[in-house]
Order: sequence, then structure tokens, then C-alpha cells
Amino acid sequence: MSKPFVAVLMGSDSDLPTMKSTLDVLKSFDITFEAKVTSAHRTPAATHAYVTDAEARGCKVFICAAGLAAHLAGAVAGITTRPVIGVPIDCGPLQGHDALLSTVMMPGGVPVATVAIGSAGAKNAGYLAAQMLAVGDDALAVAVKEERAKSAEAVQAKDAALQAKLG
Amino acid sequence: MSKPFVAVLMGSDSDLPTMKSTLDVLKSFDITFEAKVTSAHRTPAATHAYVTDAEARGCKVFICAAGLAAHLAGAVAGITTRPVIGVPIDCGPLQGHDALLSTVMMPGGVPVATVAIGSAGAKNAGYLAAQMLAVGDDALAVAVKEERAKSAEAVQAKDAALQAKLG
Amino acid sequence: MSKPFVAVLMGSDSDLPTMKSTLDVLKSFDITFEAKVTSAHRTPAATHAYVTDAEARGCKVFICAAGLAAHLAGAVAGITTRPVIGVPIDCGPLQGHDALLSTVMMPGGVPVATVAIGSAGAKNAGYLAAQMLAVGDDALAVAVKEERAKSAEAVQAKDAALQAKLG
Amino acid sequence: MSKPFVAVLMGSDSDLPTMKSTLDVLKSFDITFEAKVTSAHRTPAATHAYVTDAEARGCKVFICAAGLAAHLAGAVAGITTRPVIGVPIDCGPLQGHDALLSTVMMPGGVPVATVAIGSAGAKNAGYLAAQMLAVGDDALAVAVKEERAKSAEAVQAKDAALQAKLG
Amino acid sequence: MSKPFVAVLMGSDSDLPTMKSTLDVLKSFDITFEAKVTSAHRTPAATHAYVTDAEARGCKVFICAAGLAAHLAGAVAGITTRPVIGVPIDCGPLQGHDALLSTVMMPGGVPVATVAIGSAGAKNAGYLAAQMLAVGDDALAVAVKEERAKSAEAVQAKDAALQAKLG
Amino acid sequence: MSKPFVAVLMGSDSDLPTMKSTLDVLKSFDITFEAKVTSAHRTPAATHAYVTDAEARGCKVFICAAGLAAHLAGAVAGITTRPVIGVPIDCGPLQGHDALLSTVMMPGGVPVATVAIGSAGAKNAGYLAAQMLAVGDDALAVAVKEERAKSAEAVQAKDAALQAKLG
Amino acid sequence: MSKPFVAVLMGSDSDLPTMKSTLDVLKSFDITFEAKVTSAHRTPAATHAYVTDAEARGCKVFICAAGLAAHLAGAVAGITTRPVIGVPIDCGPLQGHDALLSTVMMPGGVPVATVAIGSAGAKNAGYLAAQMLAVGDDALAVAVKEERAKSAEAVQAKDAALQAKLG
Amino acid sequence: MSKPFVAVLMGSDSDLPTMKSTLDVLKSFDITFEAKVTSAHRTPAATHAYVTDAEARGCKVFICAAGLAAHLAGAVAGITTRPVIGVPIDCGPLQGHDALLSTVMMPGGVPVATVAIGSAGAKNAGYLAAQMLAVGDDALAVAVKEERAKSAEAVQAKDAALQAKLG
Repeated sequence: MSKPFVAVLMGSDSDLPTMKSTLDVLKSFDITFEAKVTSAHRTPAATHAYVTDAEARGCKVFICAAGLAAHLAGAVAGITTRPVIGVPIDCGPLQGHDALLSTVMMPGGVPVATVAIGSAGAKNAGYLAAQMLAVGDDALAVAVKEERAKSAEAVQAKDAALQAKLG
Repeated sequence: MSKPFVAVLMGSDSDLPTMKSTLDVLKSFDITFEAKVTSAHRTPAATHAYVTDAEARGCKVFICAAGLAAHLAGAVAGITTRPVIGVPIDCGPLQGHDALLSTVMMPGGVPVATVAIGSAGAKNAGYLAAQMLAVGDDALAVAVKEERAKSAEAVQAKDAALQAKLG
Repeated sequence: MSKPFVAVLMGSDSDLPTMKSTLDVLKSFDITFEAKVTSAHRTPAATHAYVTDAEARGCKVFICAAGLAAHLAGAVAGITTRPVIGVPIDCGPLQGHDALLSTVMMPGGVPVATVAIGSAGAKNAGYLAAQMLAVGDDALAVAVKEERAKSAEAVQAKDAALQAKLG
Repeated sequence: MSKPFVAVLMGSDSDLPTMKSTLDVLKSFDITFEAKVTSAHRTPAATHAYVTDAEARGCKVFICAAGLAAHLAGAVAGITTRPVIGVPIDCGPLQGHDALLSTVMMPGGVPVATVAIGSAGAKNAGYLAAQMLAVGDDALAVAVKEERAKSAEAVQAKDAALQAKLG
Repeated sequence: MSKPFVAVLMGSDSDLPTMKSTLDVLKSFDITFEAKVTSAHRTPAATHAYVTDAEARGCKVFICAAGLAAHLAGAVAGITTRPVIGVPIDCGPLQGHDALLSTVMMPGGVPVATVAIGSAGAKNAGYLAAQMLAVGDDALAVAVKEERAKSAEAVQAKDAALQAKLG
Repeated sequence: MSKPFVAVLMGSDSDLPTMKSTLDVLKSFDITFEAKVTSAHRTPAATHAYVTDAEARGCKVFICAAGLAAHLAGAVAGITTRPVIGVPIDCGPLQGHDALLSTVMMPGGVPVATVAIGSAGAKNAGYLAAQMLAVGDDALAVAVKEERAKSAEAVQAKDAALQAKLG
Repeated sequence: MSKPFVAVLMGSDSDLPTMKSTLDVLKSFDITFEAKVTSAHRTPAATHAYVTDAEARGCKVFICAAGLAAHLAGAVAGITTRPVIGVPIDCGPLQGHDALLSTVMMPGGVPVATVAIGSAGAKNAGYLAAQMLAVGDDALAVAVKEERAKSAEAVQAKDAALQAKLG
Repeated sequence: MSKPFVAVLMGSDSDLPTMKSTLDVLKSFDITFEAKVTSAHRTPAATHAYVTDAEARGCKVFICAAGLAAHLAGAVAGITTRPVIGVPIDCGPLQGHDALLSTVMMPGGVPVATVAIGSAGAKNAGYLAAQMLAVGDDALAVAVKEERAKSAEAVQAKDAALQAKLG
């Protein structure tokens, strides 16, 4: 049987700098992933073919990043019934406000799990995918919990630095 | 050869009360049309099949109405290269502001000719389709011009009524 | 070992009419759930205790609904590392726009899987929870796919009704 | 008889850098065009005279770009019954949000086919004009379809580059 | 020579209920006025003719009310060099936010003196016109000052009523 | 008797670079003016004293510029019954959107004649003041009309340059 | 010496239904208060006189409610150096969004302690005033803490009702 | 008994440059304070422990700064009944608009005294804390009043500089 993996789709290669942190988080949890540039509008057939095939090959979670009238996550959510995470990209004159609404305001029956606009959301898409996979993977659940503890330690280290500075 | 027509697609049958005025305008210009409920998210394959077939059968302009994360117009614009008019529907808590941004902020190469949110836009989608068809149809161009003159007369009649009232 | 379940938390009992559809979707998939009124601000300790206990008892997904400065989903996401779905409630003078931003704009490391404001989002929270559980539950994955097919049939039935009407 | 052409009107010469891509798209389809700086507010009589004359000389589509309280497209749409495409320019403190609403929210009877704010919209104004002209010009319809295929290939090339990079 | 007057223009007769309070304020100051329904988009030539003629006949201030992509005030400001007051009408799904931006964000050289959206603005358009005429009319200046004093008394009467109630 | 003049008030000296163009326009029309830094919040008594005195000395129009919760124009409008022009300054994280609403949404009875946010508005404040003074000053009315003609010529010169460039 | 009290100022008597809950909260803590209708714009001198006098008579906290371009809180904050709490009233076409920005975006040196728009904010203005007075009043601090405990119990009672209902 | 102090909490050390002015204002009034980096989401337990302990040790006012879905002030307000001042930080693609709504729109019973987004708010948080402490500290009340007088003098010095410049 096919190995479970996460698919990370981007509407444009200009989304890659933002989405690199998604890939980094997935790597940090040793989660297998595929990354792909595909467009809801310019290559709808290729998008459809990839998503159908990826689901058949064992893709368990899709992460989709797009800006402006960001339809990619919604389009993918209409093809697969695996969870789809949407990352609204911070580009164009409205700075991602358009992408947020285009991603999150999905009609009943076709959810997109939307995260924050831009870099915070890109990071969190990776964490959320890990949390979803961890629902059925206890070792990953432990790893996610450990990472959270480290993130708490990082905050406390920053506080220690502040205390030292304020003296 | 197939007769030219306009296709009017709605993401939901709840859009019909708003879109009735589109159909009325098309009828007033004797433009042949098909109306269809089809969803970018719930029936993407049926949408794809209909649009491809309609274009082959002579559809010259597509009008697409949707609310919330309104992807229908953009999805259709990615399938056909005929002009696509998008009507953002005024529904949900954001009153169509989400639908406007999801419809108009299309990336380069895949335009959607967007009209106003709600009833004004629904009416104008019909007029705009007529104007597009009139580019290659002189009789229709004359009819569109006559309708504009009538609309001017209507404004002037309202002014006459105001003068009588204030008089 | 404890049975897996979903916890549905509401910041106020006034959220219940909206969230009923979440519970209905979960029931339709035979997913065990607990529903609870608890407040991030008025009962933070009780919220903390419940979430910690629920996770220990086998809660796999949390769904949190709140309006205004909607902190409940984020607060729960800071306590558990299970996936947290946030439903921004459409209440108050800003009609849920405040709740959307308070729910979705989470900082890196603590994601909230945000769905649409109000009723569409409430329904989708149930579907998304089902999709998440289905990552590790093939029977549920089949049920989710079947439900999607039914939703497509519903759209096509509406189209058939429209054709009959226009016919 | 007069040769069909597209008129590209700009409210200010500061719109030219954005609108250059409109002209480039029109050139790429061998579409004849005229470009003109004219203002709805500072030269309303000259605008009226030009639009009336251009329509008489065979202008089939008007493209109008303006920022701030962007009235140019609406003003032109009130003079001609040919289709008018509006490009909201991304300038001033509200970054084109004002221009978008001023362009798209036209009252019933006088549509403006609005595209995205700024550079994506400028490009798409050219494509949309080509699509409109192609309604009555089969050779142009073929050219538009070919261009779409090339744009799909460009996305696939970017994906190939990503795959090579991730390798 | 012609008698000075104020012209009150409305884009639609549906603006009349809102604009009645403008007329009432003008009447309360014994200011001569003309009210007219005329449209920037549907009757641009009639609008141009009226404004030019009204200025020649002694119109000193224009008040223009419009909703949606509210171009009327800006269009009039491009025809006359008399002061133009713009009242954004609270109609349509965006509740006058579109009309506000379309009215106030005028480019340099063609100002519109914009007042609040809807009923508060309609009232204030009358007061502002009175203030403008009072620049060169000392008797009117005294009347405006007296009206302000009455409005202060009205506030104090409301406070007295509150004190009696709380008493 | 006192000579008529315009008072230009700024909430902060950081508004001066924006407001320089107001002063330039007033100078170009040979309008006497006073400029003053005074704050609605930090120096309310001094603001009150200045406005009362200025009105007594012959100030016919007040121009007030402020950013953020821009109260200066409204505060001045509550002291004098001369026309008050408000310029929302483009500063702070909301880029003048806060200042626009704080300036324009005045309650009934106390109008502020609001112009565009930032530099376009600063220029137009000068023009609007000139238009207001011209209501009772025919020579100034002629000068305003001449300036408009020059501004039309500037647009036409820009168009000529474009034609030469496209040549 | 004068008894400490809270002053509750309203820009209009139409704010009273919203602000009744402020008065109810103050009563529930046995806090002495005065309520007054006074306007930043229509009665600026009376507002100034009242605030100066109230501070001298022992007013320790001012609560100010206003809608639209809500200047009352800021104006009072410029007169007194006692803490000023601002309640943006949910009225007019922008539903209090204008009042929120006009109240909260105060420049450096003149803070307004802003609470939520409308009814939630009105209630919280009372609690916040109690918290401020409790800084120097231990008995009141205990009462505030007890009220919070009761509010937690109310949430838990609602949860108990839900559990009974879900059974 | 413990000495009264103010606690200044930051969600991230990236908030420190903005919040330095809060600390400077507190220092200028000789107010004792503690500054701490602590996160509502990453270190909720540490935040809870600190706030409970700080209140017990004599903390009279909490100042909380956070960006994005800014929950820190609300979370602290749910733990303590001392007044909590919230500073929305200007960061991320929405420039603090999200942080403002997440901070100010608190439900009834748990107020956050919200100040302006970013640097103006950071400064004002310090002043507001001083005003709150001054409710029970007459010497501090005098100091606050003196500082206001100095701030008025600064405005008048800027005006004097402007007069010198304009000559």
C-alpha cells in the first residue's frame, strides 16, 4: 500500500519563499511531502488530475497556498475529501485580505481549514498538517507535543533575555 | 452550425431571485440563453463538462453568480476562453464583500468581467452580455442604444414627477 | 483505552442555534462528541481543566465557536496539541468580521483551522472534523466521500428543478 | 467602413506604467488600439467628444484606468453603449480599494466590466478586450485559446523547475 | 441679474426621502433652491446642460446625492467651479461605504465637499450650503449662528429631561 | 473692518509637508491666510480662543488637518459657524482611513466639508476654500475658472506627450 | 471634601438605551455617578464647563459614549487628566466602526480607554470604571472579584443547562 | 505589604521596540513596573501563574501588547480583576487592524481598556496606567496634570516655530 504523505500546492512559484517554512515544519516532523506549482485557473485539468492521483497514492492532507482571488484551496477541496488547509498569501494591493476571504468563506459541505495570511499561516499550515496526521499516529502526536514545549521554552528564553536587559 | 447563446450559471438556487433580472434583460433583447445551477465546489466535474460542451455548442458569453468565497466565475473562466461575467451575490454575514473580492481579484491571464454586488450587478450582467454580443451584431447594437435612451427618458420622467411634486 | 471523540466548545449558549448544525453533521457520521459551554475569559480555569481532561480521555479534535474578540479557539489551541477548528460567530455590530480575524490570525506554532463565519462555517466544522478523523479511519473516509456525492446530487436536483421551471 | 479598434483611456499619465501591460497584450493579439490621457473631471468635454467620435470611427471596446474616486470608466460607460472595461489603479493611501468600489458598484443599466486592482487587472483588461472582440472574430478566438495553452505551459514549466530544485 | 440659489441634484428619485431634510434645512434659512433628478451615467448630457445653465442663472452651490459608485458630485464638480457638496447615500449591500469613497477621494484640482453618509449628511449638506452662502451674506451668517444656538439648547433640554428621569 | 482670510490649522507640525500644497494653492489665488499648529486634544483652550478670535477678525473659512482619531476639524466646526474644511492626514497604521471617518461622519447640525485623504485632499482644501470665497467675490470666481482651464490644458499636454511617445 | 463619583456623558439621548447597562453596573457596585447629555460639537462650552467642574467636585473616572465621528471621549480626555473610558455607539450606516476608530486612535499623550462597540462595551465601561476605582479601594476590589466569580457561575449554569438538554 | 506596581506583558520580544515608550512614560512618572515576555498561546500556564502572582504581590494595572489575533490582554483580563490595558501591535499584513479588533471587542464582564494601534497606543498605555494609579494617589495626579501642561507647551512651541518659518 502507498505511504501517507502531504501535498503542498502553490498557485504560483512566487509563493515559494513564503511556503518554504511549511516545508521546513513538515521536514522537522519527518513527514513525507510533495510540493507542486499548479493553478486553479491556468491549469485546472492538471490540478484535478494531480489531486485525484495524489489521493489515490496516499495523500492524507493537502496544503494549498494562493493570493488574490485565492481559489486553489477551494478548488482542491471540491476534488478531494481529504482535509485541505488553505494559506492566504500576502500579495497584491489588498495585502492578502482578498485571499483570506476567498479561502475561508467556503459554502457548507466543502470546508477549507484556513490559517493566517502570509508567513505565520505558512508555518502553521505545517503544524496543522502534523496535528491532523497525529490523530492516527501516536508517535507523531508525541513529537508535536514536544515541539510545543520547545516553543514555550523559546518564549521563556526571550523573557530571560529581557530580564537581563532591564537588569 | 449552432446558434449563439448566453449561459447563466448559479452556484445555488438561492441565487435565482437575484438573477431573475439578468434573465429578464436577456429576454428583453431576444437573446437566447440557458440557465443552470452548478457548483464550483460541489459539482466541479459537472461544471467542467457543461462549460466545455456549452462553448462547443455556441455559447458566446458566460454569466456566473455566486456568494461567499465566490469561485464559480473564476472556475468557469479557467475552463473557457469566452468572456465570463461575474455577479457577486449579496449573502452571508459580509454582505457580498467577500464575493466581490473572490470574483474580481483574478490573476493575470484569466479575467472575470465583474459587475456590482447583488441586484444592480445582476441587471448589469444582462446588459454587459448584450453589449458583448453587439460587438459583432449591429442590430443588437442598435437595440442596446435604444434601451439606453429609454433609461434616460425614465430618469427624466422621474425628474418631471419631482418638479410636479415640489412645484 | 478511551473512545475517540470530538469536543464542541461554545463561548456562550447564544452560539447554540448556530452550532446545532455542527452537532447534526457529527451525528450524521456517527461521530461521538461532547458539547460544552465554556468561556476563554469568564471561566479560563474550567476551560483549561476541561481541555486537558478531554485530551487525556481521547478527544481527537476540538471545535470552538465564539463571537466578537473570539479567543476561545486560540485559547484551546494553546492548551492542547490536537487539531482545533475555529468557528467565528456572526454576532455583534461587526457581524463576525472581528471574530474571523481573532480566530484565524494566530501566530506561528499555534494553528487554528478556521472555517467561514456563521452558519456555513458551523456546518463545515462538522465536515472538517470528520475529514480529520477519517485520516486514520477508512470507514469514515468512505462515509465522507459518500456524503459529498449526495451533496453533488442535491445540486443537480436543484438544477433539474430550475430546468423544469424555465422549461 | 472604419476599422475596429480598442480605446485605452487613462485618467492620468501616471497610470501608464501600470497600463503598459494592457497595450502589450493588445499588441500580442495584433489588435489595433488608441491610447489617450483624458480625465472624467478635468477634461469632461474632451472625454465626451473623444468617446463619441471613437465609437463612430469603429471603437468596439473601451478600457478605462483610474485611481482614487475612479470615475473614468463609469463616465465613459454613460457616453457609449460599447462594452467598457474598468481597471482600478493601485494608488493613494487606500491602495486602490477606493478605485475598485468606484469602478465596480455601477447602478443598473450602465455596466462596467471591472477587473482586478493594479497590474493583474491591467493585464486582464487586454485579455478581456480580446475575448470580447473574439465573440465575432473566429481567428482571434483561436489566438486567445492558444495563448491560454501557453500560459498553462508556463505554469507547468515553473512546476518542473520546482521539482528540479526540490529534487 | 439672476437671484442666487442652491441646486440639489439626486442620482435617483429613491434618494428623495433622505434628501428631504436637505431641502427642509434650506427652507428654514429661506434659501432659494432647485431640486432635480439627474444621473451622471444615464443622463450625462442633461446633467451637463443643467449644471452649465444653473451656474449661468446664478446657482452658487451644488448639492449632489448618490449611492453605490456615486459619481454625480464628482461629475458636477468637473463641470462647474462653484462649490459642490457631496452626500453619499446609504443604499446597497455596502451601506454607503462605496458611495463615501467614490465621493470624497477626488483627485487634486476638483474638490467635492463631502459630508457624512446618509441622513446626518443630508441634513449637514443644507447647513454647509448655508455656511458657504453666508460667507458673503451677513444676515444669513447671523441666522446660521442663531440656529447653532438653538441646537445647543436642544441638547440641554435633552439633558434636563435625563436629569428629571434619573432624578 | 477686518480683511477676510482663511485659517489653516494643523494638529501637529508633522502635517506641514502635506499641507504645504494647501498654502501654495491659497497663495496662487492671492488669498490671505494664517497657518497655525494647534491641537484639539493637547491645547483645546488655545484652539477655542484662536478660532473665536479668528472669526471675529474676519476669518471666512477654516481648513483643519489631522490624522488618526482626527478631531480637529470637528472641534473647530463646533466653535465657529464659518465653513470648516477637513483634511484627513495619511499617517499611522490605518493610513488615514481612521482620519477620514473621524472627519466626515459628523452628526447633524455641525458639518465638516471633507476632502480626500492626504496629498490630493490637501491640494483640494485650497481649491475648495477659494470656491467658497468666490461665492461672494466675482474676481476670485473668474480666477478659479481660469485655473480649471489650465488644469484641463495640462491633461491635454500629457495626452499630447503620450501620442508622441506611442507615435 | 467631595465624594468620589463617576460621570457618564452621552453625546445624544439616543445613546441612553445602550448606556443603561453602564448605569446598572455602577449601581450594582454602589458607585455614585452622574449621567449627562452633552455634545462635543453642539455644546462644547457646556461640556468643558461640566468636565472641569466635575473633576473639581471629585469625579474620578469619566465614561463617554458617542456614535459616528465619536469625538466626545477624546474631547473630554483633552480637558481632564482623570481616566476617560470611551464607548463607541453602534449607530448609523457604518454600525459603529467609525465610532470605534474615532474613539480609540487617540494621539500620544491623551489616552481614551476604549471598550467594545455597543452593548458589550456599555456593560464593560461600568466594570472598567469599577476596576479603576478599586485600585485605591480594597472593599470595591473584593466586590469586583466576587462579581467575576458570579459571572463564571453563570457560564457554568448555562453549561449545565446544555448538558441537561443534550442529555 | 507589597509595593504597588504596573506589569507590562508582551506576547513577543519583537514588541519591545514599540513598547519601550510605555516603559519610558512609566519611568518619567517614577512608577515601579515589571516587564515580561509571555504568550497567551505558547505559554498559557506561565502567563496564568505570573498574573496571579503579580496581582498577589501588588500589581495594580496590567499593560498587555500583542499583534495579529492579539489574545494576551483578553487572556490576562480573564485571570485578574485589576484593570488591563491592551496595546494592539502594528505588525503583519493587516497592520494591526486584526490586533485592534481582537483586543477591543471583549464580551460583557471582562473589559480591556484598549488604546491606539502601535506607537501612539504604546505611549498612551503608560499615561493611562498613570491616570489609573492617580485615582488613589494625589501626588501622581498632580504629576500627570503637569505633564499635560508640558505637552500643551510643546504644541505651542511647534506653532511658534511655524510662525517664525512663515514669517
